[in-house]
Amino acid sequence: MSKRDFITVEDWSGEEVDALLALATRVKRGEITGGLERRVLAMVFMDPSLRTRTSFEAAMFLHGGHAVVLEPGKSSWSLETEPGAVMDGSTVEHVKDAARVLGRYADVLGVRSFPRGTDWKVVREDRVVRDFARFSEKPVINMESSRRHPCQQLADAMTLREKLGDPTGKRFVLMWAWHPKALPTAVPASAALAAAHQGMEIVIARPDGYELDPEDTALIRRIAQARGGEFVHIMNDPDEAVVGADVVYVKSWGAVKYFGQPETEAAFRAGLRDWRLTAQRLKSTRQGRGLVMHCLPVRRNVEIDDAVLDGPSSVVVDEAENRLHVQRALLLELLGAR
Amino acid sequence: MSKRDFITVEDWSGEEVDALLALATRVKRGEITGGLERRVLAMVFMDPSLRTRTSFEAAMFLHGGHAVVLEPGKSSWSLETEPGAVMDGSTVEHVKDAARVLGRYADVLGVRSFPRGTDWKVVREDRVVRDFARFSEKPVINMESSRRHPCQQLADAMTLREKLGDPTGKRFVLMWAWHPKALPTAVPASAALAAAHQGMEIVIARPDGYELDPEDTALIRRIAQARGGEFVHIMNDPDEAVVGADVVYVKSWGAVKYFGQPETEAAFRAGLRDWRLTAQRLKSTRQGRGLVMHCLPVRRNVEIDDAVLDGPSSVVVDEAENRLHVQRALLLELLGAR
Amino acid sequence: MSKRDFITVEDWSGEEVDALLALATRVKRGEITGGLERRVLAMVFMDPSLRTRTSFEAAMFLHGGHAVVLEPGKSSWSLETEPGAVMDGSTVEHVKDAARVLGRYADVLGVRSFPRGTDWKVVREDRVVRDFARFSEKPVINMESSRRHPCQQLADAMTLREKLGDPTGKRFVLMWAWHPKALPTAVPASAALAAAHQGMEIVIARPDGYELDPEDTALIRRIAQARGGEFVHIMNDPDEAVVGADVVYVKSWGAVKYFGQPETEAAFRAGLRDWRLTAQRLKSTRQGRGLVMHCLPVRRNVEIDDAVLDGPSSVVVDEAENRLHVQRALLLELLGAR
Repeated sequence: MSKRDFITVEDWSGEEVDALLALATRVKRGEITGGLERRVLAMVFMDPSLRTRTSFEAAMFLHGGHAVVLEPGKSSWSLETEPGAVMDGSTVEHVKDAARVLGRYADVLGVRSFPRGTDWKVVREDRVVRDFARFSEKPVINMESSRRHPCQQLADAMTLREKLGDPTGKRFVLMWAWHPKALPTAVPASAALAAAHQGMEIVIARPDGYELDPEDTALIRRIAQARGGEFVHIMNDPDEAVVGADVVYVKSWGAVKYFGQPETEAAFRAGLRDWRLTAQRLKSTRQGRGLVMHCLPVRRNVEIDDAVLDGPSSVVVDEAENRLHVQRALLLELLGAR
Repeated sequence: MSKRDFITVEDWSGEEVDALLALATRVKRGEITGGLERRVLAMVFMDPSLRTRTSFEAAMFLHGGHAVVLEPGKSSWSLETEPGAVMDGSTVEHVKDAARVLGRYADVLGVRSFPRGTDWKVVREDRVVRDFARFSEKPVINMESSRRHPCQQLADAMTLREKLGDPTGKRFVLMWAWHPKALPTAVPASAALAAAHQGMEIVIARPDGYELDPEDTALIRRIAQARGGEFVHIMNDPDEAVVGADVVYVKSWGAVKYFGQPETEAAFRAGLRDWRLTAQRLKSTRQGRGLVMHCLPVRRNVEIDDAVLDGPSSVVVDEAENRLHVQRALLLELLGAR
Repeated sequence: MSKRDFITVEDWSGEEVDALLALATRVKRGEITGGLERRVLAMVFMDPSLRTRTSFEAAMFLHGGHAVVLEPGKSSWSLETEPGAVMDGSTVEHVKDAARVLGRYADVLGVRSFPRGTDWKVVREDRVVRDFARFSEKPVINMESSRRHPCQQLADAMTLREKLGDPTGKRFVLMWAWHPKALPTAVPASAALAAAHQGMEIVIARPDGYELDPEDTALIRRIAQARGGEFVHIMNDPDEAVVGADVVYVKSWGAVKYFGQPETEAAFRAGLRDWRLTAQRLKSTRQGRGLVMHCLPVRRNVEIDDAVLDGPSSVVVDEAENRLHVQRALLLELLGAR
């Protein structure tokens, strides 16, 4: 039997994703115990984490398993990601070898690898997590790569269902926000895909120049349509964008066209601090009570105002909690619990 | 039922503390197994640790639970602690959100946060650990804050009882020592509170200028008196201080009046290297066999001489061991084990 | 009963080592479950790790125990290793105290401490791991010191047996390789000792100036002879060395005579980049199919070419896997599982 990875949600069929979400709901209700006894998850964090680390460690433990945390370049050896590299520089171990070895110690691997380098054409291939999957004999879970954050995507889908009942046809606005740094596009792409999978009406609101990768936009549109939703249009005005929204998913990301040029990008971004979800803007959402989502960590009073985050519309902590439940379901599914 | 935090020992009644210590004794005897099955402790370390981390991890494990270790600014996101901050700087996640999220993943939180900043009036409020407690829906344990180290305090109280039988009326000398850095006052305050709670006769020996926060001194006095002990007086001579002591608790701390001014404080401290517990001084304690205590880590031959630490009077390793037992008792108490 | 440490393999008798390896084989077959319930391993990493950390954590977990990871100078206090030091500098805790305290929290300790300092006469005494063993009341496992990597040695011995059937008399070539840094001699010494213990014919191939410590060479010779093998000779030509080899164990190490002088050593090493295991050289091994071993992490295309590492001769991942099994056996043996 060939192994199953979880690199992107779209690699799995809609039915499989629905089944995962249904399992996550049962897990959340406390209906499922055990199933991961004597199982080990090895997590490779090339970037920091709070939710991912804690929720995966808790997930393994709650079902009888154990998670090991590795941090290449800190507690563990710095990893070389270039195929065929002549390794006479500062990297100590090749992803190939790390993946093969961890596949012998663990039953499943998790990999977090944010974008590095300056060439989006290369970075968009998500080679680090894909090479881990290629060289490990055990399943690999993407714990956020350059292109996707599929566990966040599942948690967001679960949250949309819980909060909206049937999300079909409801209006989901992905709203860009200013941020002091150029962030990856993995979360905004994944969040819009979550809404698309729920058959929602998708709006993407961002300043000109902040288009997502065209392949991602096309995929969001295709999935929305296939699941009974709609890709409405793209807006470049934050006031207009939120009008009538059932959900505003706030997130910052960097301009892909200036990928790897942080100074140029920062200058381009400079005039856009008004892109922020304020209490005033929240009033324009459906009945003034649209849901506010964010993957966290959030820059308070920069992306979203305190009054919004601390008010009744915010479901950001529920999204974070659902990370735990969807990951428990995912691990049970991947490790073929009885 | 409202949740219970453990931020300071004095937040709990004397009877509750006695009950905790009694439970710790039973735990140490091996009378209690289990009780933390499927329970998760999330520990947030904003500062380093050896004893706290190892003993809490072991404590959870020994009763069937699991501890997750998070290090903001290293493996995890750097935390913003200022309420209402406009987060356009280097901190990535607000304590508010971290506390809320961890409260969803874990059953209890631990927080270590040493003093930061330059204004003692602000720092003495212990806002970080208190905000974790305020925003988390789960109990929060103070793993050492600017003002208190309550787990050390419990371990020290347990050690005093074990070594002295009935400590009431016996002489406890908190002796300042020189150290290359200006250290926090959390441990000396907590140690004196532990002795006060045991009804001991308390002496604080320190150079002029090294007074503890007046609120702490008043509290030590009040508790000593309430528990049948006495706050004798403050001395500023290390030779005189140790005479007739049943216990010498050695500890360095910085001058509160120069808090946040390390260079000024270092100059003020410069002439005080003679404040050290030597074998010679140990001879002046009761029958030359007074107990020597220290919370560890200790600067050998700077705070206490090798001959003292490696001799029969030293109970520093027993204190450290008791951290494990009191924390097991605390976790069992907070998580309401069946 | 006095405690048992595992600092070097040669501290244990040949029969004890054989028994450990036999137990490891049973463990690998899945014949042994449990045995470490309620047991805690405290691992002190003064240097990075991937295999050691993951395999020990998994080992403890798989038998019901738990491993705690400590990193002095990072998550934990920086350690002083000098006996009698007046600790008024940057180190915060003495090994003596760390060892004593961890011995109270854990049932067994692991210590990784690579060579530090500039004087090989001092460094070769392996004082850090030996002081941990001396001051801890619990067994100490050497997770790689200046002189030895005994867990790697056991894993290599197990791999030799698995792959060669009876290794007696077969030709084991320890081949030096160029590397951008001067690495420790612990692994090459341990690898040759593993082969010697299996009664193999040992060849050490290295450029002049890259002799191992004479005591290690003498020990390799003595053990090889005692176990029915032979210490053939030392070669200084990589082409000649591999001819007819049953096993080529590739490893880089620094010139001991320039220990602590990295720039001088680097200049001395400069002309030696040709010392690399290429596919061409592999053809000269026995029937062109000699086994290729390396402890990992390996510098690809610097120590060993991709074509060799990714080809059928390489058993490097099996060696790494065997780390898990020998350590499970070692822990079961040290903790005297019922």
